[in-house]
Amino acid sequence: MATTSREIRLKSRPVGMPKSENFEVAEVALKDPGPGEVLVRNSWMSVDPYMRGRMYDRPSYVPPFQLGEVLQGGAIGTVVKSNDERFKEGDLVESMLGWREAYVGPAAPLTKLPQTNVPPQAYLGVLGMPGMTAYGGFNRYGQPKEGETVFVSGAAGAVGSIVCQVAKLRGCTVVASAGSDEKLAWLKSLGVDAGVNYKKGNLLENVRAAAPKGIDIYFDNVGGEHLEVALEVARPFARFVECGMISIYNDTTPAPGPRNMSYIVGKRINMKGFIVIDLIDMREQFLSEMGGWVKDGKIKWEETVENGIANAPKAFLNLFTGANTGKMLVKLD
Amino acid sequence: MATTSREIRLKSRPVGMPKSENFEVAEVALKDPGPGEVLVRNSWMSVDPYMRGRMYDRPSYVPPFQLGEVLQGGAIGTVVKSNDERFKEGDLVESMLGWREAYVGPAAPLTKLPQTNVPPQAYLGVLGMPGMTAYGGFNRYGQPKEGETVFVSGAAGAVGSIVCQVAKLRGCTVVASAGSDEKLAWLKSLGVDAGVNYKKGNLLENVRAAAPKGIDIYFDNVGGEHLEVALEVARPFARFVECGMISIYNDTTPAPGPRNMSYIVGKRINMKGFIVIDLIDMREQFLSEMGGWVKDGKIKWEETVENGIANAPKAFLNLFTGANTGKMLVKLD
Repeated sequence: MATTSREIRLKSRPVGMPKSENFEVAEVALKDPGPGEVLVRNSWMSVDPYMRGRMYDRPSYVPPFQLGEVLQGGAIGTVVKSNDERFKEGDLVESMLGWREAYVGPAAPLTKLPQTNVPPQAYLGVLGMPGMTAYGGFNRYGQPKEGETVFVSGAAGAVGSIVCQVAKLRGCTVVASAGSDEKLAWLKSLGVDAGVNYKKGNLLENVRAAAPKGIDIYFDNVGGEHLEVALEVARPFARFVECGMISIYNDTTPAPGPRNMSYIVGKRINMKGFIVIDLIDMREQFLSEMGGWVKDGKIKWEETVENGIANAPKAFLNLFTGANTGKMLVKLD
Repeated sequence: MATTSREIRLKSRPVGMPKSENFEVAEVALKDPGPGEVLVRNSWMSVDPYMRGRMYDRPSYVPPFQLGEVLQGGAIGTVVKSNDERFKEGDLVESMLGWREAYVGPAAPLTKLPQTNVPPQAYLGVLGMPGMTAYGGFNRYGQPKEGETVFVSGAAGAVGSIVCQVAKLRGCTVVASAGSDEKLAWLKSLGVDAGVNYKKGNLLENVRAAAPKGIDIYFDNVGGEHLEVALEVARPFARFVECGMISIYNDTTPAPGPRNMSYIVGKRINMKGFIVIDLIDMREQFLSEMGGWVKDGKIKWEETVENGIANAPKAFLNLFTGANTGKMLVKLD
């Protein structure tokens, strides 16, 4: 039986905000798995802001996507046929082979999901890369202490919403910024102390009102104006956890940075950029502590789901308009 | 015998670049030292870029200077009369009571200089606050490793010129930026590997040419364009030691910051602001290691000297035009 898979390829490099024309759907035939290989049908794939960076043709911490080739990203799938003793039919596996319905490939890089009551797509979110990013980045670089005030931008996203909850579990006061009152209402229901809708009024004034004593930790997902505001309200010895700058990823002309950089000196701020693979040594701790919180219902999450591989570009584009609450996913089966 | 002292007071708060009109000379009568007090005649006083910050009326890590009151800063003087058993006539002492020819005050906050062959004003420079800033900031936050490349801005200043030499002693390659070819020639004579005159040509191109493999540590004394360039040429996991931003201290309209802040994430940069008092626990180590290097001739320094208390404002103003090579001092006797 010939097996086929539809996949999404990068047709052209986006200039500025990505458009659907930058992507194309293609169908490929899959051969039978050879020795040590498996055939996997994906059930969920992840779209994440960092993928925008790989669409530029420039050296970075991961190689750029190539024109005319299938994209990559986190995915959860089911083993349909196995030619490797580690895997059997029906196993749920995680891979970096998203943006396609199915694939045949070496079993070695795949991770078998544990048997739990957690829905499998959580391994693309709270128990996967975004959860690890939030948990590891906040704890390692934020160095939270009980009673401190934490400001989280992009707080309703996959990473931000976990940071908010971890910060609460660490005994911090949490001020969250998001782009709609609905998102803020959800964050409040998770325990966030104060919310700021960055699309309404003056951001600096609103953050000042929400954090009148200033902030000790800024978890940055957006860069731009939020970063300037965070510098303004930072208390001495504040830690800035630089996770992402989604507000400037699509700039064609680089936007000017914060006008108040000299606060870094006077306030003795520590600003630390990171990506999730830097935290690999925290993986055991993450799975243990976060797994426990998830099991105990102490960490909650939302998903925003598009259906079908053809809608994967749409899901990705929607990340930049703030259409998602929580983790943005594409359901593939 | 009545003793008088001339002193420099802040007449008005500078707007933008300070001017001589912002300062005034006044003469005060000094009473005899009471119990636990000493009369000290200053021989040297320090002017430093950080003093500009204290001329603004805003909360910061040190309180602002007050209008109509005498300024403060590091000074070296000789005890003329002592009413405290710790000090005797002729003792050389360091104080924060600069900007005046003489003073009567409590002996407790004064530090007696050790008996060495080092000229006393070195305790305002290489063995004092600028030396400690350079040594402590570079070692603690720069975390230098042998073979790494270090970029130093404001490299011909009191702090920068020491950073360059400590970096060489730590086995690093050093790229220095300064505002004249004469300064760069001096830095080369101290062992600096490559120099960039920031007043000539394109700064980014020139730094790239001087550090073709990129930089691992940036010791920032100037902020502004230099900081943007440093982000551009930074290698992954670079450390940015944020010591000062003299290029923007006098801005009346805050200048836009670096347009490439997102490199902090992708390159996983650690940017750390500090001031010298954060390093107080390194003082013993500093005096021991730096003292040894000075004694062995492994660290050299220059001084730029103005004479007489009336010229103290001029010395201070000249910091912002780059008139100094090495430590800017005012000789008072």
